[in-house]
Amino acid sequence: MPDYKAPLRDMQFVLHEVFEAEALWQGMPETAEVNRELADAILDESAKINENLVAPLSQPGHEEGVHWDDGIVTTPKGYPEAFKQLAEGGWGGLSGPLDFGGQNMPKMLVLLFEEMLYSSNIAMGLYLTLTSGAALAIDSHASEELKEKYLPNMYSGKWAGAMCLTEAHAGTDLGMIRTKAEPNADGSYAITGTKIFITGGDHDLTENIIHLVLAKLPDAPAGSKGISLFLVPKVKVNDDGSLGDSNGVSCGSIEHKMGINASATCVMNFDGAEGYLVGDVNKGLQGMFTMMNYERLSVGIQGLSAAQAAYQWSCEYARERLQSRSPSGPQNESGPADPIIVHPDVRRMLMTQKAFVEAGRAFAVYVGKQLDVAKFGEGEAKQKAAGMVELLTPVAKAFLTDKGLEGTVLGQQCFGGHGYIREWGMEQLVRDVRIAQIYEGTNGIQAMDLMGRKVASNGGNYVATLIQEMRDFADSAAGVDGMDEFLSPMTGAIDTLEALTAFVLEGAQGGDANLIGASANDYLHVLGYTLYSYMWAMQTKAILSGNSQQGEDFDKAKLQTARYFMQRLLPQIDALESSVRSGSELMMEIDEAAFV
Amino acid sequence: MPDYKAPLRDMQFVLHEVFEAEALWQGMPETAEVNRELADAILDESAKINENLVAPLSQPGHEEGVHWDDGIVTTPKGYPEAFKQLAEGGWGGLSGPLDFGGQNMPKMLVLLFEEMLYSSNIAMGLYLTLTSGAALAIDSHASEELKEKYLPNMYSGKWAGAMCLTEAHAGTDLGMIRTKAEPNADGSYAITGTKIFITGGDHDLTENIIHLVLAKLPDAPAGSKGISLFLVPKVKVNDDGSLGDSNGVSCGSIEHKMGINASATCVMNFDGAEGYLVGDVNKGLQGMFTMMNYERLSVGIQGLSAAQAAYQWSCEYARERLQSRSPSGPQNESGPADPIIVHPDVRRMLMTQKAFVEAGRAFAVYVGKQLDVAKFGEGEAKQKAAGMVELLTPVAKAFLTDKGLEGTVLGQQCFGGHGYIREWGMEQLVRDVRIAQIYEGTNGIQAMDLMGRKVASNGGNYVATLIQEMRDFADSAAGVDGMDEFLSPMTGAIDTLEALTAFVLEGAQGGDANLIGASANDYLHVLGYTLYSYMWAMQTKAILSGNSQQGEDFDKAKLQTARYFMQRLLPQIDALESSVRSGSELMMEIDEAAFV
Repeated sequence: MPDYKAPLRDMQFVLHEVFEAEALWQGMPETAEVNRELADAILDESAKINENLVAPLSQPGHEEGVHWDDGIVTTPKGYPEAFKQLAEGGWGGLSGPLDFGGQNMPKMLVLLFEEMLYSSNIAMGLYLTLTSGAALAIDSHASEELKEKYLPNMYSGKWAGAMCLTEAHAGTDLGMIRTKAEPNADGSYAITGTKIFITGGDHDLTENIIHLVLAKLPDAPAGSKGISLFLVPKVKVNDDGSLGDSNGVSCGSIEHKMGINASATCVMNFDGAEGYLVGDVNKGLQGMFTMMNYERLSVGIQGLSAAQAAYQWSCEYARERLQSRSPSGPQNESGPADPIIVHPDVRRMLMTQKAFVEAGRAFAVYVGKQLDVAKFGEGEAKQKAAGMVELLTPVAKAFLTDKGLEGTVLGQQCFGGHGYIREWGMEQLVRDVRIAQIYEGTNGIQAMDLMGRKVASNGGNYVATLIQEMRDFADSAAGVDGMDEFLSPMTGAIDTLEALTAFVLEGAQGGDANLIGASANDYLHVLGYTLYSYMWAMQTKAILSGNSQQGEDFDKAKLQTARYFMQRLLPQIDALESSVRSGSELMMEIDEAAFV
Repeated sequence: MPDYKAPLRDMQFVLHEVFEAEALWQGMPETAEVNRELADAILDESAKINENLVAPLSQPGHEEGVHWDDGIVTTPKGYPEAFKQLAEGGWGGLSGPLDFGGQNMPKMLVLLFEEMLYSSNIAMGLYLTLTSGAALAIDSHASEELKEKYLPNMYSGKWAGAMCLTEAHAGTDLGMIRTKAEPNADGSYAITGTKIFITGGDHDLTENIIHLVLAKLPDAPAGSKGISLFLVPKVKVNDDGSLGDSNGVSCGSIEHKMGINASATCVMNFDGAEGYLVGDVNKGLQGMFTMMNYERLSVGIQGLSAAQAAYQWSCEYARERLQSRSPSGPQNESGPADPIIVHPDVRRMLMTQKAFVEAGRAFAVYVGKQLDVAKFGEGEAKQKAAGMVELLTPVAKAFLTDKGLEGTVLGQQCFGGHGYIREWGMEQLVRDVRIAQIYEGTNGIQAMDLMGRKVASNGGNYVATLIQEMRDFADSAAGVDGMDEFLSPMTGAIDTLEALTAFVLEGAQGGDANLIGASANDYLHVLGYTLYSYMWAMQTKAILSGNSQQGEDFDKAKLQTARYFMQRLLPQIDALESSVRSGSELMMEIDEAAFV
């Protein structure tokens, strides 16, 4: 497996020169002390620890996997020590609140750390980011007492966190869960049930694991309106903060999976375990949704991260591997053959990866910006950003991971036969990223969340706001020399998005109950491509208006890549449009029995 | 892992009712005795042995993998016995010549056996089909003496075969191989060198393995014009046919791969091994190309096979898994939720798989028909078919395997989290099929073979012939009631294909040396989609003109699936067209150094 090198130059370009983060941060009281210098120092340190500590454990962890022995889960060699170093470096608490030991850093910045973390090692990254996610849910919904008791040790990485939602018969449909919560006399609850697919449900990285568990009270209403959320520690915590007795929480087995082999995916048994209510009774899903927007973006970033690693490694390989001659004559006359990077089809694979990865990074930062404004901002801007977070979260999760699989497959393909061999590391990227399209709500569920809850249920308001923002940008950028070739295809994409939104809304209002589901996946991709054209247009504007500080070679390559995206990749929207317009009948009219 | 059930009904429909194979066979003297009854009996027996013997070994083989211990390669439990049963059943010699123990069956039929074999177990299938492939090369190019000595034991499956082409520094670019062949006094050659990625290079299935090895004579011209082909047995064979001494052929190690874990991918060392020239000195690549058309179609079928397995298992799962309710109201009121097959997005995934798999099967049989007419036919028809084989082979290899990955990923996605868990079998399909896009010439190489050698180098003659055939079909089918909705999109696709062919040929003639490589991948996909529209139009014509004997439910689903393909999938051509027309500059002008 090649070394990972963090793409710092592009990160700085996106953060500072495209999104002008410093000005944004300094305009919001809570982030006013974050400036470019601090941000760059954090990125540099993040690059060091990920490149030197986290990345080298990835392939050995893939080969060794997690061990389960009579209920005891052991992570691969080196994982506990590395987790400790990450925790002690404060990387788990970057976006946590100051009160509980966090650093309250903006998400736009923190997500670039996450990108590096996942590019280095998705399996290791999950232990850290799920801990942050669980802490966020506790911080948002739990009592002060629970917060004070649990959060400092979670943000410091002394304890880990895990999310326990899925049961064997209840994945997407959480309303069907059976785990019970029976009130104890002391106000706590006895939690009993079995959860599956619990990432980091048990491991040897920390002395305690804090589970957030969805369960039902005995008298709870049926379905999703009867779900409550509980904090259930693996080991009980005494009032003085010391560890007490074990708590009836055990790992029944671990799953053997396609990838992320170093991540413990656990069957968790709760056997009358003591749990503490988080938030209100029967409102447990709300607590979960608080962290959902963060976690779903985080999963999206896994797609970006794997694609970035595949891109950089395939670039290196394409420069080194000598095979055949360029169609325009030998380029490496003294060698036995030319490097394969001279071949147009290899360049197609590299350019496609580059165009998606760099748009994806900008898009992730753009979503991070919305999260920051929704959290730290004020008034109308805050409200608008909160709507954008709603709209964009499913797109970030699904589109970044779909492009993640596509990118890793392209990168692997550049390696020819070597791409299929484990020691080269490319097959691990494909296997590891594949889960990101599935967990935290499958990409099909994301698409339905987008089309149903985020577009149709508010009559397309959010998407209209986004379209207006993009049109405003196009107007403001139109005066910049050389923008035309980028704005014109972007505007075409916006027109298509707008027309398709109206098409689906009208059809659904017209009584076609299946149209939303039938259109959801393709509509999400139309929105994804349109957003990427916006990201490319914003990047080119930063360059053409003289904002870039990255040098002429960088700027030139950006414009070339933007052009490639607009002309070669964006036309995908035309095919997606035809597909959406073909309606729902094509897939609904066929008999179930015909699917054989 | 679910049970595999061979799709016999669709196979019979395609073979007999779409392509009217019996009439074709009976018109050619060598195949005149093959009729529908015999073909169906072979399909039935093939289904039995694959469903009952081969498929059950797939998942255990995936988990156990191949063992290498001090040069000795051992396949997973049950493989030697199963291989023996397959061999004794004559399945390795189905298309072999009668003289040497084969059954001389038409490829149209044999490839349906191959589909079942690979759907059941790609890793196991490879040992058998590579033996047939090696035997074919020997039959086509070796001396009578070599044929008599080796072929009967290969077609009977007593001995296996392997193809030794790749070296560490020479994959695509075989001109760079270094393996030496030095003449011995007795007319044989001493072969010395190391080959990598040798599928079935060593194993415990047979008592001997017959290697076909590319090597260079000491005075050979440089590059691909100096390559000769040698037959090199693992164990020397005495004149009386008994086994003699071992032959300086050893397995240095096996690769650890993404998938096909039960297939031994070997590093093979030849240490002065005795080899016998096959064909003429320095013409070794010709011998290889003889089997290439068969092997590449066979690899394409691996894509189809994996997609078929994914399709049928995801259909079953979607019917059984209860989760959430249909958007048009509960469909399973007495149950806790509806089966997920009611959801439009799940149906999108199933319909997409179905549309590609059923077109792919028809396409494979269509290519098989061309191979048969090229082999058994006469005169102009034979000549035309030989041209079609040249043109379609790279499409069959690349398009079927690209759609194979797409299909297995869609099937896996239907399983949600369970799709990522090894015991469900879906992740194995994705991992196993991925190699099919890479080996036997990567799909990028296939695309360049298509665009360069099969289209540009003859001024588009082959593709013009195919276009004429498709237009003739459209004319002849236009009179059939109800064909319009299928012929009209197909004709649109043909127009696009024709225009793009002219665009690329003109650009290349105009001096753009990179245009062929830049267009190759997308052009191949345009041709693939166009051919699939032809396959769907042929299937609908068989139904609408009353040729189908499969019953009303079958016919109705076929028309619905064809409609889905035409309206929902075929528009992909529009995006591909824009991509091709964007030319080569977009990917060639960017500096190599910018790929970071």
